[in-house]
Amino acid sequence: MNNVRDYIRTIADFPHEGIMFRDVTTLFADARGFRMAIDQLLHPYAGIPIDKVVGLEARGFILGGALAHQLSTGFVPIRKKGKLPGTVISEAYQLEYGEAVMEVHDDALKPGERVLIIDDLLATGGTAEAGIKLCRRLGAQVIGCAFVIDLPELGGRTKLEQMEMPVHALTSFDGT
Amino acid sequence: MNNVRDYIRTIADFPHEGIMFRDVTTLFADARGFRMAIDQLLHPYAGIPIDKVVGLEARGFILGGALAHQLSTGFVPIRKKGKLPGTVISEAYQLEYGEAVMEVHDDALKPGERVLIIDDLLATGGTAEAGIKLCRRLGAQVIGCAFVIDLPELGGRTKLEQMEMPVHALTSFDGT
Repeated sequence: MNNVRDYIRTIADFPHEGIMFRDVTTLFADARGFRMAIDQLLHPYAGIPIDKVVGLEARGFILGGALAHQLSTGFVPIRKKGKLPGTVISEAYQLEYGEAVMEVHDDALKPGERVLIIDDLLATGGTAEAGIKLCRRLGAQVIGCAFVIDLPELGGRTKLEQMEMPVHALTSFDGT
Repeated sequence: MNNVRDYIRTIADFPHEGIMFRDVTTLFADARGFRMAIDQLLHPYAGIPIDKVVGLEARGFILGGALAHQLSTGFVPIRKKGKLPGTVISEAYQLEYGEAVMEVHDDALKPGERVLIIDDLLATGGTAEAGIKLCRRLGAQVIGCAFVIDLPELGGRTKLEQMEMPVHALTSFDGT
């Protein structure tokens, strides 16, 4: 298998009926697949200074840990409400029903730091938008958002590009 | 700061009163701290074949992604109930009040694969014990469990050693 896409498994009706869930655990579990994903995620940023990698809970932590290690940077988690022990700032975002809140420690990034945001999947872009806002509120410069999978019909890429955020995704799938 | 311990922040009364929470986000956010932690976590396993790194949700994902990348292995997540999309096997474990369940995909490990389990913190050892059992039920050989922090008074190390599981921790704290 020579393509990241070949390692991604599709599971029907998860988390609920009608959803074709794109499962990256089969990509991550394969040594060549995981290495290929990390290499390709970093490809557009070769030669560009990055101070910190910011990962979105929870699959973004797996990728973010590897990217931070490869880049020799620190790693900063953006987590769901109530998970971080220190003083946080918060951003709410819309879910299909209701809303959710993402948080970051208020001392996790310094003004002017250049950060790369990473997650496995770009769907509606709600969590990524919240992540960008949190980083910007701490004064950091988000140089890009990288994803393994883009679901362009759900509008996330358009939403982030309207925030003047360059988006990098390794592969895309039609539909939800 | 020349020691992993120096990068760990203590936050009083999180998640509830009386708990001194050992916060590794300050370790992970520092490029030197994070690199030092990854290097030291792998030190006992130099020269020992490892087929996969298994990380426990959620901070174990950050470390596990970096370890798998460094070792050029695949990464397998063990998650809380309901988060994995495929067919899973489950193990319940005791919490302070009630119980919780950890899950792994039933095809995530092959019989005979040599795995390293990683998490940030060893406390009572409940999640790690569940993780070891899940890996063993899939026929994998767990060659060790590695943690940044050990809280020996909570008994986790003793519990894992009774399962004939070698434990590696970078630092320990007294009390809870």
